[in-house]
Amino acid sequence: MRTLNGKTIAILSMDGFEQSELLEPRAKFKEAGATVHVVSLKSGELRGWDKDDWGKSVAVDKLLDDVKPDDYDALVIPGGQINPDLLRAEPKAVQFVQAFNRSGKPIGAICHGPWMLIEAGIAKGRRMTSYQSIRTDLKNAGAQVEDAEAVVDQGIVTSRKPDDIPAFVDALAEEIAGGKTYSRAA
Amino acid sequence: MRTLNGKTIAILSMDGFEQSELLEPRAKFKEAGATVHVVSLKSGELRGWDKDDWGKSVAVDKLLDDVKPDDYDALVIPGGQINPDLLRAEPKAVQFVQAFNRSGKPIGAICHGPWMLIEAGIAKGRRMTSYQSIRTDLKNAGAQVEDAEAVVDQGIVTSRKPDDIPAFVDALAEEIAGGKTYSRAA
Repeated sequence: MRTLNGKTIAILSMDGFEQSELLEPRAKFKEAGATVHVVSLKSGELRGWDKDDWGKSVAVDKLLDDVKPDDYDALVIPGGQINPDLLRAEPKAVQFVQAFNRSGKPIGAICHGPWMLIEAGIAKGRRMTSYQSIRTDLKNAGAQVEDAEAVVDQGIVTSRKPDDIPAFVDALAEEIAGGKTYSRAA
Repeated sequence: MRTLNGKTIAILSMDGFEQSELLEPRAKFKEAGATVHVVSLKSGELRGWDKDDWGKSVAVDKLLDDVKPDDYDALVIPGGQINPDLLRAEPKAVQFVQAFNRSGKPIGAICHGPWMLIEAGIAKGRRMTSYQSIRTDLKNAGAQVEDAEAVVDQGIVTSRKPDDIPAFVDALAEEIAGGKTYSRAA
């Protein structure tokens, strides 16, 4: 993987994140030299989800109210059925995602995470993938849905499921390390 | 509430149904004289969800493979973040919903349950409501989204959340007892 020395990455999450989709990218990005913060609307710990039941918890590093998009080089949105459904109902979380998009910084969303890209209004016209169950929502939002382990479209990286994590992390690291910025429609 | 003597109602569910949204309509419809079956793709018990954690379990009465839409007068789809997400990934469950729509039989969906109406392709052009977090998906599917405790459009009854259960049950009972059939677009 590309070195990510000096890069700072936010993982936006609530309770019910699919545990591998937060813990594994966080570990890989840290190994590559990045600073990684779990950012949430609640303080303390977030309860992870392990396939079909609660799993490991993770400590929140920063409250969303205490950070700004300018503090970060990239954003990661893990899946889980519960986590993105809680996030998308929070206007501040949606605005946080929109700010990364406006400034052309890489965003990675995996599994059910792309629901937040729908809510942020940035799916339209983009090549994207997701977990099988939400593809109708992506299509209805105007995305061009593909079935691949990682789809990159102008700095937005999407993947389908936990098995895709290695490809997801590699593609996102490439976008972050490349330091590209994209001119994106709101 | 209207009497439902002689009526048979299917509640389609998987694990993770919002417990009040299955148990309360079932109790009310039984009180009104209906026969009510919990229908699922898995046998045994389904685990309910109580706001933010697992709740009570419920026994499955019929496997989806062992019933047909003709056996029922109406269909109920409870919410929960997990239940409709599991249901919509199952083609047989989606086809079951589509069959009720084609034959003009009442369908009730509450909270996150309307995700199944999106998946079944029957949201377009309909007046509907849902839990707040999935309204963008409903709009993107072409529904005319309203914010009311129960919205009825040609036999399809939708509601927002557990607080709306009394209005949901009354509206659905009215549709079932009325014995109306609707001519619906596929």
